[in-house]
Amino acid sequence: MRRKDGMTATHIEGSFTNRLVDDVQAIARAGLSEADLTRTKAALIDYLGVALAGTSEESARIARGFVEAEGGHPRSTLIGTATKTSMSQASLVNSIAAHALDLDDTSIFVGGHATSVIMPAALAVGEALGSTGQDILVAYSAGVHAMSVVGLATGAESYARGFHNTGTVGVFGSAVAAGVLARLDDDAMRRALSLAATQASGLKAVFGTMGKHLNAGRAAANGVFAAFAAKEGFSAPDDGIEAPRGYQWTHSDRLDVDRVDRELAGRSGISGVVAKRHACCHGTHSAVESIRAAKALRDFADDEIVSVVLTARPIVRGTCDIPAPVTGLEGKFSLRYVSALALAGEPTTSEGFTDEKTRDPRLVALRDKVSVQVAEGMSFGETRVSVALVDGTRIDTNVNAISAVEDPDLDAHLEAMSLKFADLADPLIGADRAARVVAVARDFENVASCDELNGLLTVE
Amino acid sequence: MRRKDGMTATHIEGSFTNRLVDDVQAIARAGLSEADLTRTKAALIDYLGVALAGTSEESARIARGFVEAEGGHPRSTLIGTATKTSMSQASLVNSIAAHALDLDDTSIFVGGHATSVIMPAALAVGEALGSTGQDILVAYSAGVHAMSVVGLATGAESYARGFHNTGTVGVFGSAVAAGVLARLDDDAMRRALSLAATQASGLKAVFGTMGKHLNAGRAAANGVFAAFAAKEGFSAPDDGIEAPRGYQWTHSDRLDVDRVDRELAGRSGISGVVAKRHACCHGTHSAVESIRAAKALRDFADDEIVSVVLTARPIVRGTCDIPAPVTGLEGKFSLRYVSALALAGEPTTSEGFTDEKTRDPRLVALRDKVSVQVAEGMSFGETRVSVALVDGTRIDTNVNAISAVEDPDLDAHLEAMSLKFADLADPLIGADRAARVVAVARDFENVASCDELNGLLTVE
Repeated sequence: MRRKDGMTATHIEGSFTNRLVDDVQAIARAGLSEADLTRTKAALIDYLGVALAGTSEESARIARGFVEAEGGHPRSTLIGTATKTSMSQASLVNSIAAHALDLDDTSIFVGGHATSVIMPAALAVGEALGSTGQDILVAYSAGVHAMSVVGLATGAESYARGFHNTGTVGVFGSAVAAGVLARLDDDAMRRALSLAATQASGLKAVFGTMGKHLNAGRAAANGVFAAFAAKEGFSAPDDGIEAPRGYQWTHSDRLDVDRVDRELAGRSGISGVVAKRHACCHGTHSAVESIRAAKALRDFADDEIVSVVLTARPIVRGTCDIPAPVTGLEGKFSLRYVSALALAGEPTTSEGFTDEKTRDPRLVALRDKVSVQVAEGMSFGETRVSVALVDGTRIDTNVNAISAVEDPDLDAHLEAMSLKFADLADPLIGADRAARVVAVARDFENVASCDELNGLLTVE
Repeated sequence: MRRKDGMTATHIEGSFTNRLVDDVQAIARAGLSEADLTRTKAALIDYLGVALAGTSEESARIARGFVEAEGGHPRSTLIGTATKTSMSQASLVNSIAAHALDLDDTSIFVGGHATSVIMPAALAVGEALGSTGQDILVAYSAGVHAMSVVGLATGAESYARGFHNTGTVGVFGSAVAAGVLARLDDDAMRRALSLAATQASGLKAVFGTMGKHLNAGRAAANGVFAAFAAKEGFSAPDDGIEAPRGYQWTHSDRLDVDRVDRELAGRSGISGVVAKRHACCHGTHSAVESIRAAKALRDFADDEIVSVVLTARPIVRGTCDIPAPVTGLEGKFSLRYVSALALAGEPTTSEGFTDEKTRDPRLVALRDKVSVQVAEGMSFGETRVSVALVDGTRIDTNVNAISAVEDPDLDAHLEAMSLKFADLADPLIGADRAARVVAVARDFENVASCDELNGLLTVE
């Protein structure tokens, strides 16, 4: 390996990229444990639901219009349609659709969305190559692992600077998922990771706009290019992540390999993927659950509330603390508005995040009673809620909605994702076909191709 | 305009993006001065030559294979072929081809390549939309101006961190060129710039590999998406460059508007575009010219040389100081190797940068006599050369090969670019057709479409 700072070495033993390639190739060879297989299928079902519902969002509609104008050989299906296009364009559009509602899952290892970037790439490439369901699940899982390892090594500094992990870290996941399906050898996989590194993009400045959806889509599409260019011999350093002037030092302030080992503790990246139950920034979910817990303790009315104080990690500043949103997209990134929905007992599904809703007088009044403060030393996703009532009562709750890595009941999780899918998909493709989608996805390791799944998902 | 840090304003008067949009829309409306028109046509001819010659490079070949496998409606020509594909894919491939030889021009305002990113996008979009030559030249020029303004505001810190300006700053140029052709209004142009910002990518870690070519290609292609998505209403902040957690603060440490005004001093960005005469990193060119000047003073033999000391700006560290290159691509980024070519009187065209050449014993021996040191306070591109000979003679030369912004003889520049084109294109398309290409390009403001130009450029 040649480094551009003048140091040379034929091979740096134990380099970060080498270790990452070893990890993903091991997943590609060994396949998935029973638990990881269940997690992976739950993620697939979750993806299919949020992406299908997301196709009617404006960002997905515009992206689909762009790629239809661009054209492409019919190799990979645009979800919800009978249209096929190129792998990279299908990855772009389906990823934008999957992230459009902000109802897609998060990796707690990354602090960013995982499946909405990686699954569209895995499915688009898998469909184009005629891969089996088993191959696609394994490739997706390897991609999530890669994204998790890079995300853990990157740490919080990158996000704090303004980079959107979903995009900047996601491209490594997409490159690896595509690379596993394309059966890259170790050398090509290293180059694919470096080509991913040099295409990493995504800013937090676009939060609250469709630009956030694009960050996911661009990561998905660029990772596919990285894998296939590397396969054909496109040269790149074999250490574009950790090299001087590489990804790690331009996007973060450290390469925390110890943190990777400590947090993963031998687990695969898929164990850190947490699904959403509310259609808003994951950083707002614990506030919803804590407020609902408070209301369960005592069902106070609006006019009984003096104040609601939320305490969260400093990262919420600039992430989900838009104080007075006036659009649905902005509402998704407003702890105060999301709390108002929970206080009002309103749904936190997509219907809670329309432009009209954010201007609803009752919700605005409730929102104005909520204040947000930050504190160090809290755990990921934690938000403490303190409700002060007119009679002097104070209700303190603290429910962490972002569940632990060790999910004790994976079958229940798979069932919950199946129900979430039905909620999203039944209105679009009917309950019968939606149920058949779930059945196919729950048996996806035994499915020979993507064809039946795609056919069932076509919105008439 | 809503900012994500909690501050809101309906419109920030005098914001950076507003100023940039005003500038590019003014160029779009007013067109080009006589001098800028000549500069622009010279840049077009230079682009056509380097891109045509670059099509046979491995990076361009692999990228072409990828997009041919992907397919696309036939709207924009892959240079050197009769194949048409989509706008964004043609932008990707043609930009990679244009940057593959590293013989493409540099903007001294940006410290990065300009035309190889922006011209492919302008031509691909212009061809797809049926734009005139005049429209394409104006759009390209507006793109170069946008890239120059962002590059000046970004300053040296971004490049020093490890970002490759060609990619990270280039995407703004591509977005604006495409946006001008698509006739974006001010609001859409602001959103296009923010969508460019969130797609900005490119690392210096890939220098010396094909990854560097990809940085140009990705910027070209992503800018096209930004413009057309913005046109269709894809939402984005109107200040993605200067907003908190925007491009400027993730990629640089300042937004130096004063520097923009000071350096541009009312000129358009195209006035800072400097063409290359050597097929290697622009940072090595002054070393070549200074060594040739030394040899002109006294034509010393290899064994007369005791040492050659180069003194350049600190930025060469990690940019073009690979000490012992073993591939042609690495050779392009090695001041020591490039100096060896000049000392040996060897050509610094593409033939000087083959893998075999970098291992030539004579060149290796000369290279080993060269050392590189850095000093503050030198001007852009300057490299001082001091040759010590065995008889005690010392020859000091200092020729700055990167010419000033004010080019006193633009007709001579246009003529030089026409000759460079002939050198590159004659072997590929024959001298007659090459001469006709130059004739069409020199009259491009009066040409109704890209068709004749593309036809002439097809390599049989």
